[in-house]
Amino acid sequence: MILAPSIREVAGGLLAPKGWKAAAACANIKGSTADKLDLGLLVSDTDCSAAGVFTQNQVRAAPVRWCQQLLPAANVRAVIANSGNANACTGEQGYRDAADMAGEAALAIGVDPSQVLVASTGVIGVPMPMQRLLSGIRGLRLGADGDAFNDAIMTTDTRRKQASVALEIGGREVRVGGVSKGAGMIHPNMATMLCFITADAAVDLALLPGAVKRAADRSFNMLTVDGDTSTNDTLVVLCNGAAGNPPIRPGTPEAAVLEEAIETVALSLARQMAADGEGASKALEVRVSGAASEDDARAAARAVASSNLVKCAIYGNDPNWGRILCALGNTSVRLDESRVGISVNGQRLVACGVSTAFDGGAASQAMKAPLVTIDVELGLGSGQATALGCDMTPDYVTFNADYTT
Amino acid sequence: MILAPSIREVAGGLLAPKGWKAAAACANIKGSTADKLDLGLLVSDTDCSAAGVFTQNQVRAAPVRWCQQLLPAANVRAVIANSGNANACTGEQGYRDAADMAGEAALAIGVDPSQVLVASTGVIGVPMPMQRLLSGIRGLRLGADGDAFNDAIMTTDTRRKQASVALEIGGREVRVGGVSKGAGMIHPNMATMLCFITADAAVDLALLPGAVKRAADRSFNMLTVDGDTSTNDTLVVLCNGAAGNPPIRPGTPEAAVLEEAIETVALSLARQMAADGEGASKALEVRVSGAASEDDARAAARAVASSNLVKCAIYGNDPNWGRILCALGNTSVRLDESRVGISVNGQRLVACGVSTAFDGGAASQAMKAPLVTIDVELGLGSGQATALGCDMTPDYVTFNADYTT
Repeated sequence: MILAPSIREVAGGLLAPKGWKAAAACANIKGSTADKLDLGLLVSDTDCSAAGVFTQNQVRAAPVRWCQQLLPAANVRAVIANSGNANACTGEQGYRDAADMAGEAALAIGVDPSQVLVASTGVIGVPMPMQRLLSGIRGLRLGADGDAFNDAIMTTDTRRKQASVALEIGGREVRVGGVSKGAGMIHPNMATMLCFITADAAVDLALLPGAVKRAADRSFNMLTVDGDTSTNDTLVVLCNGAAGNPPIRPGTPEAAVLEEAIETVALSLARQMAADGEGASKALEVRVSGAASEDDARAAARAVASSNLVKCAIYGNDPNWGRILCALGNTSVRLDESRVGISVNGQRLVACGVSTAFDGGAASQAMKAPLVTIDVELGLGSGQATALGCDMTPDYVTFNADYTT
Repeated sequence: MILAPSIREVAGGLLAPKGWKAAAACANIKGSTADKLDLGLLVSDTDCSAAGVFTQNQVRAAPVRWCQQLLPAANVRAVIANSGNANACTGEQGYRDAADMAGEAALAIGVDPSQVLVASTGVIGVPMPMQRLLSGIRGLRLGADGDAFNDAIMTTDTRRKQASVALEIGGREVRVGGVSKGAGMIHPNMATMLCFITADAAVDLALLPGAVKRAADRSFNMLTVDGDTSTNDTLVVLCNGAAGNPPIRPGTPEAAVLEEAIETVALSLARQMAADGEGASKALEVRVSGAASEDDARAAARAVASSNLVKCAIYGNDPNWGRILCALGNTSVRLDESRVGISVNGQRLVACGVSTAFDGGAASQAMKAPLVTIDVELGLGSGQATALGCDMTPDYVTFNADYTT
């Protein structure tokens, strides 16, 4: 995790901030007899200010529509989440099912259904097994086990993604923690990802929507695994005020520090997701500098990180820089071929748009690392941005060839 | 090949029209000792009216820039083409090399260099081995072997792509023939493809640019293999007038018939390219109907045919229609989820946006065919379009992991 001086890493993940509890259970949502956790509940002791950003896919899952109706709000108490079924493309029944999930969770913790957010991930187009789900919710027991909640929302993830930090605001220690899931169907903007970020800061609700949007733009919206965005993408930030700090107002230095902490957690989670991309053998970072604008830099970085051919070359340790230049050329980003420089893991491959006559063996050797960093210098201005991704492997295809059958 | 009543299929490919000759040689452009044909020359006995469409990538290879300077033109005599080296990202030397290729070919057949088009395909960023190339051009001997020319431009293609048709215009038989190469880096618009279409029709040059553009839009620009477009894409149509028909004027019924013949050849070649996509185990056609506009239909069809996750599901015979709906949702195409219908190879999977509770085993069985056709009905208007593609297989990744090294 890359930290600003005023922010320090702490343990605890989602439950690092004060006043949060979680629960998880196996509701056999996929109908198998495997004993996999697939239902999670996250609860704050008190009302939270909460805001979110959601999928930009036109096809939005029922739980996304439920949350978008509620947020932003100053009285959120809980999130009920499941894996195994996305409750997407399930028509009006799907929306009623999402509402019923919120209702059952609200009953269990004694709040109103409108105070409960819902998130689902998994297979699309299959009706929710409501009997098993509702009975699972009734059996949940709140405690301090954030890992179990994390496990319950994982689908094709091979490992947990957690981060938590602490900072001082108004003489009080404030903590921000988060958890995310997502390994495939990941692309700007967002993608099959769920991310919940908790905080114990007291905040003015008015500052949250902008802060969440900016944090997403600099983290998850620079992450691509396979170019497909999902119906269920959800990032929610919830602040319960348990730290006892004076409420943070928009536009203050305190607001900026809190936003930086949220972004730090989001970026750490995004990097963890890149490294755990479906079938990935290594992570990819594409750093673009010298772009005519920051928008150009972002578009250029994402184009390179999204190119199937670049991703295949990364997998094969092939310093095939023509594909990188080609991916740049496929954008509307301002480009002067004769000014482009490209390096991969410190090996200079291209200067002024042509090959440096580098040592191919040494360049290939340098690519045999768990993280491949492509540096692109456009030589046109001061815009810079970094995109996150992973390589493309035969396992990615095998994995995605038989997801439902 | 799907033919209009007035058009009939004939043998002969590129050399089916009158007045054309070809030659091919092995110039060892990649420097190996393999005896692969990699240099081809296509010559008309007389001056041709010619027009082309080229890559929309900002990074354009030297031969593309050479051709774009010349076309449209009424005095083209030849095309010199090579595989093994794309002469892309090779700076100003690359442009001089393309001009020298045209010059050497012009000398060999006794015309001006400005009458010779150049096309290259292969690895990017490596200087052209001009000594071997020029000596190869000097050794070419023209004849009636169109297959050898076809072989000389192939890179990762596993088979030849040829088509030729005949039709009557003004009491004369006119023929149109074509050849194309391309198996990877193929995406709207165009992609690493070279396509040459010959005709013996006499035409007014003014009609050609529009006819070529429309033919490309309805064929190659609906074809996607891997989402990457190349630096070298070239489609050129050359009409030498050897059929002796009265010259075809723009806006006449004869112009429409000729354009249909060109499109028929282009579409046949595009389908052959889809079926030969890198690593592909089957071809994919996505037919969208009921779109709010034809532009929407085209965008929707291409989005589905381009989705990695859809392509992986096709490979795995997985009727995972959620990915199809998700790909549609990731566009800005007008969409009403509750009106969408989806069928795959005749199996109805979705009606009114939700699952038809189809038989998964039967649907999967139906997908085990060399061609998978996805029919999407949007229920909003009368726009329709078809996109061409292929599945994504582990072989695609393996193949592209070590192209240069």
